[in-house]
Amino acid sequence: MERVFLKWVEGLKFLLTDTENHQVLLDTSKESGGEGKGFKPIHLFMASIACCMAMDIVLILKKKREDLKDFSVEITGERANEHPKRFVKIDIKFKVNEEVNKKSLEEAFLLSKEKYCSVLHSVLNKPEINFYFE
Amino acid sequence: MERVFLKWVEGLKFLLTDTENHQVLLDTSKESGGEGKGFKPIHLFMASIACCMAMDIVLILKKKREDLKDFSVEITGERANEHPKRFVKIDIKFKVNEEVNKKSLEEAFLLSKEKYCSVLHSVLNKPEINFYFE
Repeated sequence: MERVFLKWVEGLKFLLTDTENHQVLLDTSKESGGEGKGFKPIHLFMASIACCMAMDIVLILKKKREDLKDFSVEITGERANEHPKRFVKIDIKFKVNEEVNKKSLEEAFLLSKEKYCSVLHSVLNKPEINFYFE
Repeated sequence: MERVFLKWVEGLKFLLTDTENHQVLLDTSKESGGEGKGFKPIHLFMASIACCMAMDIVLILKKKREDLKDFSVEITGERANEHPKRFVKIDIKFKVNEEVNKKSLEEAFLLSKEKYCSVLHSVLNKPEINFYFE
């Protein structure tokens, strides 16, 4: 069972806490009624997919004894114009140092995409979502 | 266009940065090969859905001039046992102070769920996801 908590701070700011007591402030942009003081939820959503895959890729490249020195990921997303302004497209660009074998990188990516990435597969195959009020 | 960046730090740790320079460390649990020093991607995923809705609800309750004093959300998720261990179920429990009118809360929730929540609708209606290597 995975568990996290949100606590309203003020305005549209919420403090996110996990069971290990990591914390991060969420907010939204001024145009959306916030103050831009924290991460937008939609940014955490797009980052969660890419970071889950990036972690898989690091783990697999290490197992393949590849000399990973640099690894960065740029994630961009296009949203619909009309409410709910959902993402219509997300582009994930991985960049590793050139010493990493291209075939190893491709295999690591495919293993994450096809077999291991929990977040990607939670988006591709949506979970049941239930709501409760206390 | 939404844009965020991940930069590998060491181990399975990645630093997430948005275009406003907010930063947060991501990591995974020791059982999964990390050191538990940052947020797990799957936790940011589940939090992003709930926080997007919570922000909508605050905004709508304020417009309805409800006396919101406390608002907390607990999010729990059940994952499949087999890889990719995707979420099969996510439960989102909203709790507001008792002075908030129940009907207003229900209306705010339904507006978010049916009309406004970008993250929820990106999960319910999956985006195209493309991958690139530089």
